[in-house]
Amino acid sequence: MSYDLTWNQYGKAEVRVVHVDRSGPLHAVRDLNVTTALRGDFGPAYTDGDNARVLTTDAQKNTVFGLARETGVGEPEEFALALARQLLAASPHADVARVVVEQFPWTALGGGGHAFSRAGSHVVVAELELPRGGQPQLSGGVDELVVLKTTDSEYHGFLRERFTTLAETHERILATQVTARWRYAEGAADGADHAAVKAGALAALLEAFAGHRSLALQQTLHAMGTAVLDARPELAEVRLSLPNKHHFLQDLSRFGLDNPDAVYHADDRPYGLIEGTITRR
Amino acid sequence: MSYDLTWNQYGKAEVRVVHVDRSGPLHAVRDLNVTTALRGDFGPAYTDGDNARVLTTDAQKNTVFGLARETGVGEPEEFALALARQLLAASPHADVARVVVEQFPWTALGGGGHAFSRAGSHVVVAELELPRGGQPQLSGGVDELVVLKTTDSEYHGFLRERFTTLAETHERILATQVTARWRYAEGAADGADHAAVKAGALAALLEAFAGHRSLALQQTLHAMGTAVLDARPELAEVRLSLPNKHHFLQDLSRFGLDNPDAVYHADDRPYGLIEGTITRR
Amino acid sequence: MSYDLTWNQYGKAEVRVVHVDRSGPLHAVRDLNVTTALRGDFGPAYTDGDNARVLTTDAQKNTVFGLARETGVGEPEEFALALARQLLAASPHADVARVVVEQFPWTALGGGGHAFSRAGSHVVVAELELPRGGQPQLSGGVDELVVLKTTDSEYHGFLRERFTTLAETHERILATQVTARWRYAEGAADGADHAAVKAGALAALLEAFAGHRSLALQQTLHAMGTAVLDARPELAEVRLSLPNKHHFLQDLSRFGLDNPDAVYHADDRPYGLIEGTITRR
Amino acid sequence: MSYDLTWNQYGKAEVRVVHVDRSGPLHAVRDLNVTTALRGDFGPAYTDGDNARVLTTDAQKNTVFGLARETGVGEPEEFALALARQLLAASPHADVARVVVEQFPWTALGGGGHAFSRAGSHVVVAELELPRGGQPQLSGGVDELVVLKTTDSEYHGFLRERFTTLAETHERILATQVTARWRYAEGAADGADHAAVKAGALAALLEAFAGHRSLALQQTLHAMGTAVLDARPELAEVRLSLPNKHHFLQDLSRFGLDNPDAVYHADDRPYGLIEGTITRR
Repeated sequence: MSYDLTWNQYGKAEVRVVHVDRSGPLHAVRDLNVTTALRGDFGPAYTDGDNARVLTTDAQKNTVFGLARETGVGEPEEFALALARQLLAASPHADVARVVVEQFPWTALGGGGHAFSRAGSHVVVAELELPRGGQPQLSGGVDELVVLKTTDSEYHGFLRERFTTLAETHERILATQVTARWRYAEGAADGADHAAVKAGALAALLEAFAGHRSLALQQTLHAMGTAVLDARPELAEVRLSLPNKHHFLQDLSRFGLDNPDAVYHADDRPYGLIEGTITRR
Repeated sequence: MSYDLTWNQYGKAEVRVVHVDRSGPLHAVRDLNVTTALRGDFGPAYTDGDNARVLTTDAQKNTVFGLARETGVGEPEEFALALARQLLAASPHADVARVVVEQFPWTALGGGGHAFSRAGSHVVVAELELPRGGQPQLSGGVDELVVLKTTDSEYHGFLRERFTTLAETHERILATQVTARWRYAEGAADGADHAAVKAGALAALLEAFAGHRSLALQQTLHAMGTAVLDARPELAEVRLSLPNKHHFLQDLSRFGLDNPDAVYHADDRPYGLIEGTITRR
Repeated sequence: MSYDLTWNQYGKAEVRVVHVDRSGPLHAVRDLNVTTALRGDFGPAYTDGDNARVLTTDAQKNTVFGLARETGVGEPEEFALALARQLLAASPHADVARVVVEQFPWTALGGGGHAFSRAGSHVVVAELELPRGGQPQLSGGVDELVVLKTTDSEYHGFLRERFTTLAETHERILATQVTARWRYAEGAADGADHAAVKAGALAALLEAFAGHRSLALQQTLHAMGTAVLDARPELAEVRLSLPNKHHFLQDLSRFGLDNPDAVYHADDRPYGLIEGTITRR
Repeated sequence: MSYDLTWNQYGKAEVRVVHVDRSGPLHAVRDLNVTTALRGDFGPAYTDGDNARVLTTDAQKNTVFGLARETGVGEPEEFALALARQLLAASPHADVARVVVEQFPWTALGGGGHAFSRAGSHVVVAELELPRGGQPQLSGGVDELVVLKTTDSEYHGFLRERFTTLAETHERILATQVTARWRYAEGAADGADHAAVKAGALAALLEAFAGHRSLALQQTLHAMGTAVLDARPELAEVRLSLPNKHHFLQDLSRFGLDNPDAVYHADDRPYGLIEGTITRR
């Protein structure tokens, strides 16, 4: 045949496993959405439907549940590493195991029971690729972290050409939904204090957003990324994707009203999308 | 013609207005999704396309933004009432104005700025119907309040017939996403301390969920509803809609593993849906 | 206690059952999302957690799958009726069984196999309430039927007041996402040719939308509703909910360009929402 | 500073532009969702909030609307190319312009008007990267193309280990939601008959899915990809991402019923996810 299978990956997506550790005074809940995948020498399944080398996606799902019982579920980064090792062991033709774990955060309620409510709108993420016989490539991160500031945001001095009609502003609402990934430095993933890394990275993101005077969302992105790298020496790189959730000051003069930075319309689409990667030298 | 227009309603849905009060030491943000509608003697628009009686939906949207400036935005219940009065005044053929306000909650971040992050996954709601010359019908409520408890939930003693194969359980995860509406008693809406009503109702819902030993989600619903009525004498009725977000204990015996209430699968569909209305006598 | 349980309903929502009839030359696929619920004398479950009268939601789910095998799945209206009868038979304390069936339409592909692709974005719906010993209340309908017309839509002559700034137009894009429910007349549900009713109602909706010159979306709603009643004598009433999916003509004069009804922005929110019920006399 | 901005990209996402060509007997509607982005020497905006080099995302949005008027909107691939050239011309510090166009398909309704309904659930996509002074990198594709076959799908002969408990099957429902991208060969993008390429690629995908006897979804992916390359010599590579939308045959034996490939449960999560790239040699 004149075609090649130049890339392949298969696995089970979105295994919704919840683990309860009942050993302490307050039950510990890990509420996870786990995706696993394998890459490797699986050509015969694609070209001929020969599945002899294939660890089924059903077995990958079973591995998630079985391992959650066998090893427990501590930090998602560690669970991802244990999963990836088990998947490579069970699948001789796989070269790389990929595991993505989304964790939904919960806050304990008072009231005498072991009850919880969802804490915030965000999801905490761990992404791992483990090559057979190689070093784990690990990133942590956060999705859907929605933040807004009502002042300390300006936008002016931009290039002007035929299609540029935007007014300059020295006061605007700045709002975004943070997607961040922080990559561990070579060799730093194994044995790291992942809970501390996440707490530090999240705090750095929020502090930089809140404390920074913004002349552009690009600048805010850069400030947030460098704050994460400042906070955690284990990390080598931060990628950020920041939609500019536009809040447009409404012109109320048609109704005989002023609008001194008081009433805005929160628009849906289109939105600016600012992205960047900050790397430690 | 042999057909009648037996019901009509029209308006503007989902006006995303954000109001910032910059007068205090910390800016106060009201982030709202406002829907307005009118019912009344609008037959000619439907039967003949005669719009002479129609306050356009565009004007209704403008009214939301204009009123936000003119009256400010305090509690959503009060803003809804001001809006409904203005809409009836501007639309002589309307008999009833309906206003629904969803409020997205924000939490102040530290860091020296006026910055905020989304607080929780839930939305707080006010629903108002104002008949011309009549009393306002007002309900508050909450949507998408996600809660979970890891113990104090049982399920047994149910009816058994041909299609009943469910095992009884004395220990399960109970999780739901609360939709609640609390209706004010006749005459109690105007002048009520709406912030205190909401805080009290939300606290009562969460405390009842957490503190209650559940023999059925129906019973938990009843406990949550009565707790709200116990907490706030202004309220006459509570409606609750509680999906049973099933967490199924996994059978790991095929892999030689036990599962002493540790590893669950959080399923999506189908889900139980338990609903009920509790009314003060 | 000083509170009453004044309304209750419980059941299983969104059972995704797919039935394949392999008896003909082309396999017949019914792809359904079934929701069942019971109302009745279930107070003890709510007040005391006494489940002795409760047909579990798990059993309701099993009934859906079991009945799909036992009776087959023909028209969703008939399946809903069989389900409701079975649920009432199995649940002595229920007064009313409610069944909602959403059907996802598929179109056969050529190519020699029994293969299908999703036909359109819409979902066809049947809603049934069956009181014990009473007549079935049946409605058919459609959700998410997205339509657009590029001409024959005007909007002018509306009321003007302080907040009305909308320009009149004699040419605009009219787009909506139809939600329709057609209620069968008393006694007409049982034995009706439901496939013909649905085909006739859908064709009437689309023909009225396409063929009608619109002076207001209200008028288009009325034309669509009466067309359905004209088409099918079995039907007593049509309810329609039509969001006005605004397409705003863009002002390009800032860039030295005209815009003779050529370039539009399809906005998301807010949107007009026009609703109405047309009833046969 | 000890950090580098190692990658950057910014632009306007999801500009919902609708273009109507009224010159023919039936109006031609192009309903697009356009995302633009620039990469290049924009460091000062990130590090210092110096926006002097920045073509604002607002101007990028305006360019989309202005160009739609100036050049018209023909095939999305050509519109993307015109957009990318204009963006590079307007932004001297950009090295690469990226444009993604999603097109929502519409079908003309009868009835005498210029009316349309949404055709299918899928979206047709064009993705372009244009380096300054270089060759355009162009891919077409489709998202959310939902297909299902009721026979000619088997799954057996897979690897077995501790966590493999899946039963083999010689008859199952195979369903997926196709995401495909077909990359044009070097030099083939400019001047190609894009409408013919898309029609040919879509037909090839559907014919291969329908006509193919599947021993694994991997094999079906390979058959679909090679069919696209067979059909269109302009294309060098096809990437496919195929979720396995599981339809589980229900065990009804607990209710005394058999189930000869008749009644299935369409599950949501988890799902298999099979991916691969087929490249012409």
